[in-house]
Amino acid sequence: MTNTTTAAREPEGAVAAEVAAEVAADETSAGDGPRVIRVALAGCGTVGGQLVELLEARTAAIERSRGVRFQLTRVLVRDGGKCRPAPLRRELLTTDPDAFMETESDVVVEAIGGLDPAGRIAAAALRQGRTFVTANKALIADRGPSLAAIAREHGGRLYYEAAVAGGVPVIRTLRDALPETGIQSIRGILNGTTNYLLTRMAEGAAFAEALTESRTLGFAEADSSRDLDGRDAADKVRILAWLAFGTEPPTLPVHRRGLLPHPDRIAADAADFGGVARLMGECVLEGEGVLATVEPVIVSRRSAAANTVGADNMVEVETVHNGTIRLSGPGAGGAPTASALLSDMVHHVVREPRVPASRLPASDERAHVWVISARSGAGGGDGDRLVDLLREAGIEVPSVRSDAAAGVVRVRTESCVRARILDVEEALEREGLEPVLTRYEDA
Amino acid sequence: MTNTTTAAREPEGAVAAEVAAEVAADETSAGDGPRVIRVALAGCGTVGGQLVELLEARTAAIERSRGVRFQLTRVLVRDGGKCRPAPLRRELLTTDPDAFMETESDVVVEAIGGLDPAGRIAAAALRQGRTFVTANKALIADRGPSLAAIAREHGGRLYYEAAVAGGVPVIRTLRDALPETGIQSIRGILNGTTNYLLTRMAEGAAFAEALTESRTLGFAEADSSRDLDGRDAADKVRILAWLAFGTEPPTLPVHRRGLLPHPDRIAADAADFGGVARLMGECVLEGEGVLATVEPVIVSRRSAAANTVGADNMVEVETVHNGTIRLSGPGAGGAPTASALLSDMVHHVVREPRVPASRLPASDERAHVWVISARSGAGGGDGDRLVDLLREAGIEVPSVRSDAAAGVVRVRTESCVRARILDVEEALEREGLEPVLTRYEDA
Repeated sequence: MTNTTTAAREPEGAVAAEVAAEVAADETSAGDGPRVIRVALAGCGTVGGQLVELLEARTAAIERSRGVRFQLTRVLVRDGGKCRPAPLRRELLTTDPDAFMETESDVVVEAIGGLDPAGRIAAAALRQGRTFVTANKALIADRGPSLAAIAREHGGRLYYEAAVAGGVPVIRTLRDALPETGIQSIRGILNGTTNYLLTRMAEGAAFAEALTESRTLGFAEADSSRDLDGRDAADKVRILAWLAFGTEPPTLPVHRRGLLPHPDRIAADAADFGGVARLMGECVLEGEGVLATVEPVIVSRRSAAANTVGADNMVEVETVHNGTIRLSGPGAGGAPTASALLSDMVHHVVREPRVPASRLPASDERAHVWVISARSGAGGGDGDRLVDLLREAGIEVPSVRSDAAAGVVRVRTESCVRARILDVEEALEREGLEPVLTRYEDA
Repeated sequence: MTNTTTAAREPEGAVAAEVAAEVAADETSAGDGPRVIRVALAGCGTVGGQLVELLEARTAAIERSRGVRFQLTRVLVRDGGKCRPAPLRRELLTTDPDAFMETESDVVVEAIGGLDPAGRIAAAALRQGRTFVTANKALIADRGPSLAAIAREHGGRLYYEAAVAGGVPVIRTLRDALPETGIQSIRGILNGTTNYLLTRMAEGAAFAEALTESRTLGFAEADSSRDLDGRDAADKVRILAWLAFGTEPPTLPVHRRGLLPHPDRIAADAADFGGVARLMGECVLEGEGVLATVEPVIVSRRSAAANTVGADNMVEVETVHNGTIRLSGPGAGGAPTASALLSDMVHHVVREPRVPASRLPASDERAHVWVISARSGAGGGDGDRLVDLLREAGIEVPSVRSDAAAGVVRVRTESCVRARILDVEEALEREGLEPVLTRYEDA
């Protein structure tokens, strides 16, 4: 598919010529086929490995919708012998950071974590005018401003959606959607590991037990000290404060308390006062300045924070003009983080609104549980009419309730398709019994 | 501030030259001052009026961060004599759609609703190659594809973040952040009016009473029939299906049930089966096709839908590679909708990452309620030590609990600043009483 055709089908109405020019300037052209974008990937652990698999799984969809193909040209690993994801060709592997940095590529993706060699790779990529996409919160919190300066000087691009809240698009929302709303504060659950632990402890598990579980499930690394003491969340708070308030991350002190040394007591204290504990990260405008904290907070059981469970993350942005916006979703794990990396790769290499496949309407064969009520009438006999009609239609009714005061009978059905319950509703309507039909969802 | 300086301070590392070129090509230059972007606004009711006030309130911030100034060149109103927002110069008003369309502008913002004259204004603006920004869901659901076609042909741009979920950036998230995640379904609460009504009814209010309230509070229009029968939500579902699945909105049938004719019964049925009712809009991949519904659904009290209360909206996007992402916030009201319009105006006219004011760290003078616990020791006397230390520090302790089994005393304090409670914690630490300090938030 040529680029013009692609643009001609996109639903956003942006200008095809502009997009084509941008793409042509950026990527290696490959004749009439999809444009090839060369990707060098540093790190092939949980996140990097998932990215390799995701690129493979989405190749056809990305070619169709964007007209580009991401091609891995080099993969930096620590140990060349370790098990690797199936789609990865072994000749791409290198254990030498210098060889990695010398490989030609349009995009460098970093998923190794830590400050070195990640920082050297970032600086080298940006100095070469490449796009650098990272999941590394410590790197951005520590060197974000200096990397941005290198990018500006050399025409590189720096992106880090995956560094905060995994698959939840917090960075993009702060950067693109909310700047003009007058942001007053950002607060949220920014560490999936500790949230999993606090969720399990609120359910009665001991800390040690929950930690073992979280390692088995892959939510916690072998060394989870940066999670437990709040440094991981503090890095993310600093990145959010940079985006929202322009405060350079290395200059922002964070009042930080983690779960240690007495994690079980935090859970018990919270329960004793009727709430649950969450490790909240916050940055708040205070006068002309910015305050940042990471600490366990006892929140109401009905709050959005309390209802953010397991390894999910949640971010609340309080604004002057736009109320409070909340985003949540999977904050940890390889797949969501890889997904955020890919979203940066696609969005910032190809500035082209997406062309989804053009799906057609489907017919509804899904089964649901329904609640249906109808007037039972003065004589009380009409209630049976509802049950009778359902039984005639072959729909089981495990739960029947009679509300004499309201003159209504209510039924919860077994799971059945929409068309069948609509027939019953119509019959009740014809008989003047004022049916009300509602879909029912279990928790 | 020149554009180069602006770009040089932005945290995203994008290319200054590229941005400058784009801006120069797009907007009227005004020498060394901010670039002026001429805005013609159709509609000056709740949303349009708020936009006028928001533009005024954010003028300085937008100039500083983006280097542009939005200048109203014309405002189309139905009734020239009606009360107008303070910043609006009366000579800009016109009641004639043709005069409005002839006014020179770079951006046309539409906030009148309905299909005409909104559709004529949209087509004219796009045919003139302008950017058209709208809050009009009925227009996009009915004519989105044909307007996008006009935009492509004539180089116009079509944007409609404000058409779905008010100030919650759902459109941008679906378009930019989630395309590569493998979207399976989108479901959510897309109508603030009915959600306000259902929230109040779950609290025991009668429908008629809740409706009167919602009109007083401005959540419901005088004619709320499109809200109550689900047509408003159905328009939004169709727009979401277009973005996620490429299904053209006019071709997608929506199985639709609203709250009428027996709204009170829906609430009673839900309560009787232990849940709450929410008007859910959904579009779901079903085989190769798409299914769309709008109907009242009985959801668990602990669900995200049940916890979306008042006029808020909530959208859940279920994906293959990225789990379930959830966005929520104010879905109705002039200010959030105006805020979404402004975000489209800023983002799509000026493709420049934002430069927030560079805030410095502040010192923490905020007061909080705290829970502090400490070991009470075998003799039980140490518990008093905690209380004594708090009293010595002048911190009131309205709530003291002794947990003999755990050998711990817990205290909830009156509100006090962080520094004071940290002193107490430190004293307890010195005495070996293993303090645990947690912030406490009431619901």
